[in-house]
Amino acid sequence: MFFHKQELQFKAVPDKPDALYARKLQEVLGGQYGEITIAMQYGFQAWNTHIPGKWRDLLFGIGSEEFGHVEMLAIMIAQLLEKAPATHTEAAVGSDPVMAAVIGGMDVQHAIVAGAGARAVDSNGNPWQGSYITASGNLMADFHANANGEMQGRVQAARLYHMTDDKGVKDLLSFLIARDTMHQNQWLAAIAELRAEGVEALPVPSNFPQADEHSPVAYQYLNFSDGKAAAEGTWASGPTPDGNGEFSYHDGPTTSAPMPPPTQPDPRLYGTDPKPNLMDKVTAKVKDVTGN
Amino acid sequence: MFFHKQELQFKAVPDKPDALYARKLQEVLGGQYGEITIAMQYGFQAWNTHIPGKWRDLLFGIGSEEFGHVEMLAIMIAQLLEKAPATHTEAAVGSDPVMAAVIGGMDVQHAIVAGAGARAVDSNGNPWQGSYITASGNLMADFHANANGEMQGRVQAARLYHMTDDKGVKDLLSFLIARDTMHQNQWLAAIAELRAEGVEALPVPSNFPQADEHSPVAYQYLNFSDGKAAAEGTWASGPTPDGNGEFSYHDGPTTSAPMPPPTQPDPRLYGTDPKPNLMDKVTAKVKDVTGN
Amino acid sequence: MFFHKQELQFKAVPDKPDALYARKLQEVLGGQYGEITIAMQYGFQAWNTHIPGKWRDLLFGIGSEEFGHVEMLAIMIAQLLEKAPATHTEAAVGSDPVMAAVIGGMDVQHAIVAGAGARAVDSNGNPWQGSYITASGNLMADFHANANGEMQGRVQAARLYHMTDDKGVKDLLSFLIARDTMHQNQWLAAIAELRAEGVEALPVPSNFPQADEHSPVAYQYLNFSDGKAAAEGTWASGPTPDGNGEFSYHDGPTTSAPMPPPTQPDPRLYGTDPKPNLMDKVTAKVKDVTGN
Amino acid sequence: MFFHKQELQFKAVPDKPDALYARKLQEVLGGQYGEITIAMQYGFQAWNTHIPGKWRDLLFGIGSEEFGHVEMLAIMIAQLLEKAPATHTEAAVGSDPVMAAVIGGMDVQHAIVAGAGARAVDSNGNPWQGSYITASGNLMADFHANANGEMQGRVQAARLYHMTDDKGVKDLLSFLIARDTMHQNQWLAAIAELRAEGVEALPVPSNFPQADEHSPVAYQYLNFSDGKAAAEGTWASGPTPDGNGEFSYHDGPTTSAPMPPPTQPDPRLYGTDPKPNLMDKVTAKVKDVTGN
Amino acid sequence: MFFHKQELQFKAVPDKPDALYARKLQEVLGGQYGEITIAMQYGFQAWNTHIPGKWRDLLFGIGSEEFGHVEMLAIMIAQLLEKAPATHTEAAVGSDPVMAAVIGGMDVQHAIVAGAGARAVDSNGNPWQGSYITASGNLMADFHANANGEMQGRVQAARLYHMTDDKGVKDLLSFLIARDTMHQNQWLAAIAELRAEGVEALPVPSNFPQADEHSPVAYQYLNFSDGKAAAEGTWASGPTPDGNGEFSYHDGPTTSAPMPPPTQPDPRLYGTDPKPNLMDKVTAKVKDVTGN
Amino acid sequence: MFFHKQELQFKAVPDKPDALYARKLQEVLGGQYGEITIAMQYGFQAWNTHIPGKWRDLLFGIGSEEFGHVEMLAIMIAQLLEKAPATHTEAAVGSDPVMAAVIGGMDVQHAIVAGAGARAVDSNGNPWQGSYITASGNLMADFHANANGEMQGRVQAARLYHMTDDKGVKDLLSFLIARDTMHQNQWLAAIAELRAEGVEALPVPSNFPQADEHSPVAYQYLNFSDGKAAAEGTWASGPTPDGNGEFSYHDGPTTSAPMPPPTQPDPRLYGTDPKPNLMDKVTAKVKDVTGN
Repeated sequence: MFFHKQELQFKAVPDKPDALYARKLQEVLGGQYGEITIAMQYGFQAWNTHIPGKWRDLLFGIGSEEFGHVEMLAIMIAQLLEKAPATHTEAAVGSDPVMAAVIGGMDVQHAIVAGAGARAVDSNGNPWQGSYITASGNLMADFHANANGEMQGRVQAARLYHMTDDKGVKDLLSFLIARDTMHQNQWLAAIAELRAEGVEALPVPSNFPQADEHSPVAYQYLNFSDGKAAAEGTWASGPTPDGNGEFSYHDGPTTSAPMPPPTQPDPRLYGTDPKPNLMDKVTAKVKDVTGN
Repeated sequence: MFFHKQELQFKAVPDKPDALYARKLQEVLGGQYGEITIAMQYGFQAWNTHIPGKWRDLLFGIGSEEFGHVEMLAIMIAQLLEKAPATHTEAAVGSDPVMAAVIGGMDVQHAIVAGAGARAVDSNGNPWQGSYITASGNLMADFHANANGEMQGRVQAARLYHMTDDKGVKDLLSFLIARDTMHQNQWLAAIAELRAEGVEALPVPSNFPQADEHSPVAYQYLNFSDGKAAAEGTWASGPTPDGNGEFSYHDGPTTSAPMPPPTQPDPRLYGTDPKPNLMDKVTAKVKDVTGN
Repeated sequence: MFFHKQELQFKAVPDKPDALYARKLQEVLGGQYGEITIAMQYGFQAWNTHIPGKWRDLLFGIGSEEFGHVEMLAIMIAQLLEKAPATHTEAAVGSDPVMAAVIGGMDVQHAIVAGAGARAVDSNGNPWQGSYITASGNLMADFHANANGEMQGRVQAARLYHMTDDKGVKDLLSFLIARDTMHQNQWLAAIAELRAEGVEALPVPSNFPQADEHSPVAYQYLNFSDGKAAAEGTWASGPTPDGNGEFSYHDGPTTSAPMPPPTQPDPRLYGTDPKPNLMDKVTAKVKDVTGN
Repeated sequence: MFFHKQELQFKAVPDKPDALYARKLQEVLGGQYGEITIAMQYGFQAWNTHIPGKWRDLLFGIGSEEFGHVEMLAIMIAQLLEKAPATHTEAAVGSDPVMAAVIGGMDVQHAIVAGAGARAVDSNGNPWQGSYITASGNLMADFHANANGEMQGRVQAARLYHMTDDKGVKDLLSFLIARDTMHQNQWLAAIAELRAEGVEALPVPSNFPQADEHSPVAYQYLNFSDGKAAAEGTWASGPTPDGNGEFSYHDGPTTSAPMPPPTQPDPRLYGTDPKPNLMDKVTAKVKDVTGN
Repeated sequence: MFFHKQELQFKAVPDKPDALYARKLQEVLGGQYGEITIAMQYGFQAWNTHIPGKWRDLLFGIGSEEFGHVEMLAIMIAQLLEKAPATHTEAAVGSDPVMAAVIGGMDVQHAIVAGAGARAVDSNGNPWQGSYITASGNLMADFHANANGEMQGRVQAARLYHMTDDKGVKDLLSFLIARDTMHQNQWLAAIAELRAEGVEALPVPSNFPQADEHSPVAYQYLNFSDGKAAAEGTWASGPTPDGNGEFSYHDGPTTSAPMPPPTQPDPRLYGTDPKPNLMDKVTAKVKDVTGN
Repeated sequence: MFFHKQELQFKAVPDKPDALYARKLQEVLGGQYGEITIAMQYGFQAWNTHIPGKWRDLLFGIGSEEFGHVEMLAIMIAQLLEKAPATHTEAAVGSDPVMAAVIGGMDVQHAIVAGAGARAVDSNGNPWQGSYITASGNLMADFHANANGEMQGRVQAARLYHMTDDKGVKDLLSFLIARDTMHQNQWLAAIAELRAEGVEALPVPSNFPQADEHSPVAYQYLNFSDGKAAAEGTWASGPTPDGNGEFSYHDGPTTSAPMPPPTQPDPRLYGTDPKPNLMDKVTAKVKDVTGN
């Protein structure tokens, strides 16, 4: 159960309205890596987790905080929109480049659809969607997703920090950036702990038997481009991070197989099929090449 | 530029058609973490990268391999669909649970739309979309996205491995799983190398001055749920992975701020506003509480 | 701020797993009228509201409850999936129609993507999206959206009630259906109260001056089909619910205007334009008909 | 069957082109509550209705009118775009804030994709989608959806009315706003009539036996936030609109249940599971708490 | 304006309900090439057309017919769903493979969301979307889109024809297939007429000066794969269909350019940049290769 | 398999950055008819093709070229964004209309999400999606889709050509326009060749027996609007392009059928049903009209 308190975790009041910036801030509210994504991702990971105790408590503990971040951003955006222009005359635009920028650049749905309110969309007006979140049930994989989410989120907030001079907005961003710092560190610590405790190892999933994978290519760097410098990386030689192998470098593929012949499905699917005599030739030729 | 060779990196021929399984395999072709995502993600990261040499070569080198994986899966799926039923009579269903499962469970668009061909969709028929990919220009963040992608991909392929008995399909999966092993290791090695070379440090982005973040909360674990076990984790005490701080544990928030009063936008946006006398009271009350 | 408690509002434990039903239950979790929609809709309405006191408290008060309903359904679905088949052999299907139905009918992404976990999608696997929610800032309009949401939700839950014999599932549904009863009644009461207090009247938005609408058609029923029975309804004669007019019935439109001539944009947009001499004729003819 | 007449229901000619406004007008053509939604919603409700005579005639009668509204808006938008700039030089922008606004604010796809034509998208360029419409087969629920649709639509048109000075555009909007007035009233009358005739009652669906719902919570207002003012509303005490109960007010939930233990699906789904000894402790603890 | 008549263009009554087939039929109602696409595409082309007379009349004339096809399919689907199972017991499934197929294979939203009604979605439940349609303002391009639409539609209807034994359904399909025959022929005739009358020529758009294209590659077949047989086609030698050139065949590209150096955007976008001394080397090397 | 070469097919370097134009160029990269669509469409057609030799080689041969076009556009866009503003002060905007246009009109996600990099989206920020592509297995239908794709693509590139004065950008566009000229011609040649060789004839699919279609309406032009000029077209009289019939012109439908009575599904789906006595009347009346 969730309980709400009519307080915010941090002050979320802009010095003055700025409809243009409100649109930009939507990215960290309803974008691919916005707070809705983060809150819902931790929620679904918690509800689906197979492992009790500290891992589930961790997910519940910060998931709920993130719903509060959704709220802070929504309330900030509503205030930034408070003076969004409801009318538009050519004269006004003609005399004022700032107004031109606002009218040109604000999210028009902020006014028309939401009446100067925040929306569950990104900075281009794309609705938030459930496919932004990751919850596979595998904690090592999912915690990497979480670390990535907090990194992308902090990068975006840092970029937004320079796109305004509003002290109130910057203060909120500096708070959110600090929390992203925490959460990046937290997931990296949790990843290390999963490994240290042997809950999951590498490669993920660690309980799939490596004997069942095609082991000759499991540690080969295969270069499908003509740049040579990738051979200089630690991914091209030396021991692998999972501790199970040794990297090697190869220019191009080390395996290959003939292209199978085209399929011949039921003619009542009305695809375009070869004429019979042509098909015989094809089959013969493929047999020549592949030997079966 | 990309050049195509009419060979595959590995044999992709099923022992026999299986329309039901073809649908499942669509997940690792056109799903959130399917090969289209992986190939396009590495492509856009390469095209947008700001750093030449081994990093860009790495992205081009394996991005191009991944387009070949898209091809292997598409060709495998087309062959699995080769005997997909084009007709349907109630009699046939009545006598045959296997046929019932096939008719019930196959992706109907495989037959109706693609005529027994692979599609750019996931296992539920959701079209692949550009918002699955991540390319922020920050390599530390993006390589974590890549590691996550390869982990989710290997988890899914491992799950699919048990959903078939077809030797041809399992062989292809064992090849792809091995490549996922490689690519997981590769990105983890690259992450370590970024840090070792000082190209990026933690927290990401590392050149945003930490002085500008609200530092008191930058290393606090704040527990917004009532489970206590998260305090046991390495994310709740001790040094932080970025080397810049010390974790601390707190039950609930360490900061708070009053909820701002509701906004009062232009009345011509036709939202529902308070009556004037009511609003005066509200404003007064908020001032009482907040002192400004 | 939101605070989480590791308890549920009601028991959410199925008698036994049922992967087929888990898929169906996704509709009321992540569908157009699922609990995510309801929770987020009330949240955004609260954050955007312009009116303090009982209206905002109402939105916060039940919005937070709805996030707990999201949680109950997610946890129920995870348990329904607990024995979802991880393997699949033709033999198993061949001997067992129940297994055939499960394999044919379950959401394959439940296994492949989520490892037997709930997802932020509907019963067909479409991801939840931000465009499901409504928050216009106009409370009369939005409360009708809310009443509709609770009605659609109760209809769907009632349908789902008959699609299972599982006592645990039915218990949870009977709880959710009762809450939908409450919330339907609540929004209808709130609608009446908005009107009684004069906060909003009809038609919505009530402060747009009706003098500015084209009043001759403001209360006309115009019948654009050939069925005559609509004339029998209270919408075709008698006083209008807004108290401002009298309904009248008309077969077909009471107004009309000529179709404007085709547009002639800049030729460098490369549309297909008429030849000059043809266009002259067109313009002349349109002038004939329209008189200007 | 639908028959088309090359006339419009009302004059739809702007005084002059305005590419910036054309974008805004897209909202009421192809947005969540645009005319395409309304027309398709009434169409699908008519085609799916289970009840003949006045109800179906009503749906057909105005559904067809709404397709004509789609047409009026599309034709208006095409004319507003007639002088959309096909070329762009920095010089032109440099000297002219109006042009800057146009170039900055117009929907670039209007020019690039449609060659100065209307599109089936909203004002942010999101394509119209079938999930905007509601047609559940339950008329009481669906007519509330319709009333909501006409309210949101009238709110948006009223907002757009102030965003232009163009007399031709305002005339068309005043016509559409008047029709929204009619349709709001019409659906509210139809809702009253459904109830008066006993076709549907409250709560919806009225033929689901209320005995099957968990009745103790069916009329309780449960406050999950810390605002107290919701207790003042008519939804917190007194008789309920459905005539079947009495509202009561409660701070927080009146029921609760323990959180179920985490699920343990098939290990071949490769989720992260607890170690055996850990799981024993968890199960024991849950039994302690729940008593079963 | 559109006027509706409560008659259908052709009988649309199935011999008996078939919920499984209802789902399949959704493809030609709400899929990428379903009747909604066709109707809306012709509608938007008509509203946006720049050329009056026969071309616009043609678009209006059949566009309106297509809305009637939407109606016929919706009504057929509703009838196919008339006996869709509202309940589900394991026993029923256990004894009956047909029921297993129905439960496994039907669109579950048909029951849960629409109460046995048609929906604006495809056969996998993806909502119809505005991005399925094409209306560029260029009639030659758009008529090719229309011809393609009618071809894909007829292919899908032909496939569906074999997936049922229901005489009523087959009759309707045979009617729709015949209309697709007409419409394919009609668009091909219209394409020929556009060219014959000189309204548009090839290549499209024909009034873009070919002098402004990079003419050396305008008629070269460039083979980027290693299959040689494409050289046998009429697209590899001989005169071109536009009458302006001569095809030639080339193995691989006939032009090339060096890859530009990586970009160096503002550091406050927090991408990962090269270290200064590294970047100098890169720039120097690129200059070596490109000579500028 | 695909192999990458770190060269481009043509020079893709702008004279100077232009963030506003970068957004526009996204249309031909990630839009409905952008290069991603074209590359993926040819890829899936190749992988699904049932016919070997020149047809498959053709698809592979140019599909691979198109992936290189994706790359050229992505790299061009990244360079156009190289000086995208990372900061924003009101003062800057106030003094500079050009900057106002840039800030108002650029894709804000270019900066916030991609750090001045290209994205897999269109010019309005809609993510590319798998439903843009067509691969039915029927080559005649698909080649018409391809011809349409190249025509729409060339129209868009031609429009973009006039929206910039940048010589570097125009050069790249003139190269891409020339390749579109080639590919339009190529698909039209291939269509003719399919027909000449008898691989497919008209109407598509040509092996569906025309005896099974409702032949009376197979060549009738039916006019559902009130414009008469469509009778003048070659689609209204004379021989049909498929060589199998003769066009005829008819005002309105030549067939009709009564509207079926409303459906009566299981009451536990809780739709709104007629009362029993009403339904009897309806059924009787429908029998009167239809005679069965």
